[in-house]
Amino acid sequence: MLNIELEEAIKLMNKSIKENGEAEEIELIDASGRVACEDIYAPINNPPFDRSPLDGYALIAKDTKGASKENVKKLKVVDCIFAGGYSEKVLERGQAIRIMTGAKIPKGANCVVRQENTNYGENDVEIYEELSEYDNYCFAGEDIEKGELLIKSGELLTYVHIGILSSMGISNVKVKSKLKIALLVTGDEVGISGYPLMEGKIYDSNLNLINSRLREFGLRTVISEIIEDDGEKVGKRIDEIIDKVDLVITTGGVSVGEKDILHDALPRIGAKRVFWKVNLKPGTPAMYSLYKDKPILSLSGNPFAALTTFELLARPVLAKLTGDKNLSPKKVEGIMEDEFNKPSMRRRFIRAYFNSGKVKFKGNKHSSGVLSSMIECNCLIDVPKGTKKLSKGDKIDIFLL
Amino acid sequence: MLNIELEEAIKLMNKSIKENGEAEEIELIDASGRVACEDIYAPINNPPFDRSPLDGYALIAKDTKGASKENVKKLKVVDCIFAGGYSEKVLERGQAIRIMTGAKIPKGANCVVRQENTNYGENDVEIYEELSEYDNYCFAGEDIEKGELLIKSGELLTYVHIGILSSMGISNVKVKSKLKIALLVTGDEVGISGYPLMEGKIYDSNLNLINSRLREFGLRTVISEIIEDDGEKVGKRIDEIIDKVDLVITTGGVSVGEKDILHDALPRIGAKRVFWKVNLKPGTPAMYSLYKDKPILSLSGNPFAALTTFELLARPVLAKLTGDKNLSPKKVEGIMEDEFNKPSMRRRFIRAYFNSGKVKFKGNKHSSGVLSSMIECNCLIDVPKGTKKLSKGDKIDIFLL
Repeated sequence: MLNIELEEAIKLMNKSIKENGEAEEIELIDASGRVACEDIYAPINNPPFDRSPLDGYALIAKDTKGASKENVKKLKVVDCIFAGGYSEKVLERGQAIRIMTGAKIPKGANCVVRQENTNYGENDVEIYEELSEYDNYCFAGEDIEKGELLIKSGELLTYVHIGILSSMGISNVKVKSKLKIALLVTGDEVGISGYPLMEGKIYDSNLNLINSRLREFGLRTVISEIIEDDGEKVGKRIDEIIDKVDLVITTGGVSVGEKDILHDALPRIGAKRVFWKVNLKPGTPAMYSLYKDKPILSLSGNPFAALTTFELLARPVLAKLTGDKNLSPKKVEGIMEDEFNKPSMRRRFIRAYFNSGKVKFKGNKHSSGVLSSMIECNCLIDVPKGTKKLSKGDKIDIFLL
Repeated sequence: MLNIELEEAIKLMNKSIKENGEAEEIELIDASGRVACEDIYAPINNPPFDRSPLDGYALIAKDTKGASKENVKKLKVVDCIFAGGYSEKVLERGQAIRIMTGAKIPKGANCVVRQENTNYGENDVEIYEELSEYDNYCFAGEDIEKGELLIKSGELLTYVHIGILSSMGISNVKVKSKLKIALLVTGDEVGISGYPLMEGKIYDSNLNLINSRLREFGLRTVISEIIEDDGEKVGKRIDEIIDKVDLVITTGGVSVGEKDILHDALPRIGAKRVFWKVNLKPGTPAMYSLYKDKPILSLSGNPFAALTTFELLARPVLAKLTGDKNLSPKKVEGIMEDEFNKPSMRRRFIRAYFNSGKVKFKGNKHSSGVLSSMIECNCLIDVPKGTKKLSKGDKIDIFLL
């Protein structure tokens, strides 16, 4: 398909791929940001035992019948339990056990008197109030009941899940394997930072830009290379790596010039083109192909175009493959605070700064394709095709970065 | 100070600490999320040379005087330059050099004609339009000028900065050293997940909860331990580690019971208490101390209280120490979608779900101190002291998680 809309491109990509099904077991502490790959049921109760919610005395409710400041009931203190401890005694009528917050309620006791309603006695204790059964009494499983569904397969884990699973004694968890991503930056002009720049060359932006963005999402490339503008070599390289990865992202070589070698590389190995050219600017020549059922997303080489189409096209693919919906670009409404006077013949994405519903421009290079103008920006304004200008107060759609 | 407001607590903590000044040099690719520790000026121009913005022919403007479809000007093609290449020739009158997008404009040429306005000639080329000097001509430094300030010291680096620095050939960057954090979870009752649970014990939540949250922020503990309820031992341990870390976070042992051993541990080693008890619920007994000028933040042991006060009290400390303002809890306004009928005698934080300006409750355990009720929540409602109820439509402050 040629010249399609962004939304159609996303649909086509989503249809062509499945969520990555591979799983691995990892340590709980490493699991935040990962997607659970199994239903997890509570293996134990939480709390694991009946416990006291406060500092006081465990006792038998009947023993406090009629108790008050004026009609003190006196009980014999037979033990003392701190949190983490327990008593081997079975409480009998006329007895109390000193108990602290979080400690296990001893056998025989059926309620806890708050220490403020006693004389804090050590051998004997005076009780100043009448209690009912299970007053100040937390039951085992009150927070989490054994067998309860804690985590659904497919759920994105956060620190809250980690804390809960930890409280269940779980120390390992089965999650979706990390996506294996290859990034190929094509271009004879691309030199590597840290080395002297040869005549006519420019330093790479895209390799570091996209790698860095993937890391911000908790993802990593397993293959990340600059590769020369040679259709045969690029095709060969993709063929070599395709079985080792879940996704190939390329930059450069997708336009219509002689050196746009992706159009040579991909047909050579028999990759099937799904679409080429998306109706948006910058980054129009974005292309999407399948090879051995693996997605190959090819973005423009211009860094700002690469960034924009990474956000708009690569993120939906990443979201689908990982099952982490947070990776999808987030579209919200905003109100223009500034003017943008350039007419947009085509659908266009302009970088801007979004805060509390309002959208502003940052810096003075917003109309150019320059990466440096992205600093301080946190969104892309979705300017519809045929827009004459954006005025202050206009309601607009933006994609959050 | 005793029983202070959250805002005052934050002020006191901020006043007591300085941004961590240590720096380290790291690889550019690892620098996203780190805070720059030096001003970085552009070491080169970007583009590094005058370049062509399109596929066409580099030539001398004068040679196209009067050119049109009807009045074709013919030039001799003396070389061809692809992106990444260059020509050693110096262009002379009557000559043109085939040039591709991004290629270095050859000496002698002062403009580029778009190939669509030629006959695409190989040996000779016909020019169909008149050009002025520097038409279709990108100057070196047009995007970034050598010497321009790229990054200010103190700026939080994102993938955009990484892309820009990469395009400058920079491969290493000086950033603030990672904060060294110690986490001590106190409690005789705390067992470690993955091991059998002994009678009266509960599995740890806080160690994994807070470690996991720190990792979500790109931070790590260097010391992370469960430690028994023994004031002498806890004091000794803090004394041993204080020189190795920038911040100590403890959980448990800060209330008023016999086993609230932080009140024993800290005075033993001469730590100075700055405040104890903050007017909020849950987590009231939060305490903040200084020892050898290092901050010690002590949170309640109850996991939901630990989580809440971590968000409200620890995050401002982390923001100040790291210089990363994004770590500060973010307060926004929301509109209640649900009712909350419990009166709040004291200022209280209730977990909820915020989306598009609206605040809802999730699950049915929102009034309890249970960690599992935090699942799906992404904010804490700030319920002012003395609030009788929250009604649908009420405007409320929330802290985003």
